[in-house]
Amino acid sequence: MGKSLHSSPARSRRPIGVFDSGLGGLTVVREIRRLLPAEDIVYFGDIARQPYGIKSNEQILRYSIENVLFLLKKKVKAVVIACNSSSSAAFDFLRRNFNLPVVDVIEPAAQCALRMSRSKRIGVIATTSTVASHAYVKILKRESPSARVFQTACPLFVPLVEEGWREKKITEAIVRHYLSPMKKNRLETLILGCTHYPLIKNAICRVLGRSVRVIDSAKPTAEKLASLLLEKGLLYAAERRGRLKIYVSDLSRNFVKVGERFLGEKLRDLEIVRLK
Amino acid sequence: MGKSLHSSPARSRRPIGVFDSGLGGLTVVREIRRLLPAEDIVYFGDIARQPYGIKSNEQILRYSIENVLFLLKKKVKAVVIACNSSSSAAFDFLRRNFNLPVVDVIEPAAQCALRMSRSKRIGVIATTSTVASHAYVKILKRESPSARVFQTACPLFVPLVEEGWREKKITEAIVRHYLSPMKKNRLETLILGCTHYPLIKNAICRVLGRSVRVIDSAKPTAEKLASLLLEKGLLYAAERRGRLKIYVSDLSRNFVKVGERFLGEKLRDLEIVRLK
Repeated sequence: MGKSLHSSPARSRRPIGVFDSGLGGLTVVREIRRLLPAEDIVYFGDIARQPYGIKSNEQILRYSIENVLFLLKKKVKAVVIACNSSSSAAFDFLRRNFNLPVVDVIEPAAQCALRMSRSKRIGVIATTSTVASHAYVKILKRESPSARVFQTACPLFVPLVEEGWREKKITEAIVRHYLSPMKKNRLETLILGCTHYPLIKNAICRVLGRSVRVIDSAKPTAEKLASLLLEKGLLYAAERRGRLKIYVSDLSRNFVKVGERFLGEKLRDLEIVRLK
Repeated sequence: MGKSLHSSPARSRRPIGVFDSGLGGLTVVREIRRLLPAEDIVYFGDIARQPYGIKSNEQILRYSIENVLFLLKKKVKAVVIACNSSSSAAFDFLRRNFNLPVVDVIEPAAQCALRMSRSKRIGVIATTSTVASHAYVKILKRESPSARVFQTACPLFVPLVEEGWREKKITEAIVRHYLSPMKKNRLETLILGCTHYPLIKNAICRVLGRSVRVIDSAKPTAEKLASLLLEKGLLYAAERRGRLKIYVSDLSRNFVKVGERFLGEKLRDLEIVRLK
């Protein structure tokens, strides 16, 4: 009975829920739409309370729970935490306490980095809160105790991306300032531990050189989601382009420009909601 | 009767309330403590919901009202909006609807700039939301219709100050990027329209040259507050050092370091509160 229920179209056509503190999570949505084009997606960007990366774990957990409750009202079949700060502060709680598949961005990126790396010398760059949480270090060490992990917080990268300075000299100078000290660690792999960072990947690669493999969480997260949905009988595959509905808790001034940069397509279906 | 009530010590010894989206407002507190050392001050920094500068006016207004309600519970005798984004979005509403003196940071800085400027060629640098609100332009034009006002948003200045990069080459490069185009305007005066900016005043002065007078709102705001308190019979002067109590709605990672940089003294009496 469970089986026929799982594979019933009524169940599996429900949307995938994705949330982030802002718009960076749209880099993950982009990959989900590439991998699972038929799926409908409901995205929630908590612009009114962003950024999460400078806040306490307790606060981030509270916000994350509220975001999931909002997505549940939209009848999502799974939740993707498309935010590193939320993933580090709330993934365990959400996975344990909600009765639906929950995917974060940290575990898939960490596992991907381990697969890609022979020497297991892995760098992680992220916001202050993600670095302080040691979330990447813990998971990399758990899965591969011999791994050497080198972390650096890069607080200016998010405002830099939001400002749209992707290929300026100043961008490269700032990237160099944060990453040059990492060169001595002889990294094999670098994890971009923030969903904003893929947009300055070029500058990062130029500074670190071609020997370092740079990994962002978007693709591994989409793959992890696909395999979980498949396993649970929730995957919806069809010859159609799924709908993407975007909710935000506030409108920032240059929302559309920034959002389309992350998503790589036009923002069409957009609505402001006020969370309690 | 009104008169004796106004000058009664019981009334005037109540604290002054100051709020900001974060810690930048402590630059204003610093000047208030310099000018009115005997006064007690209750400060509220809404770290949980900062930064305001990227949010909508409606959102900023709602937050500002909640902040004033919090300060009123602390029995403040006056409120200082030590935040430009709040000042532009909420000053009129707060002044009209609350029954106590309210001082913002925009009007005092604008009036000071007009007093200091003969040619009335005035530059304003601020966050995106303050620039978009045209708050400085409106008030400068109202008080001096012949004034020429040139605005520029500098979104990276706040994260730069929070990161503590005050005298780095990169700081000067970023300042140069935003301010070089303003040189052609032959400014006589530049208003720092954000309470974070005084901390990179040196770099700003170096880029603009010594002919431009740079004004920040802290001192004129403290003076405006003093004259309002005096007028209302609420001023408290005595041979004592007033108490500074700081409430924040969350703890950011490097709160103490950043806060002490703004305040210019040790943060002693600090408490976290959760607003509803």
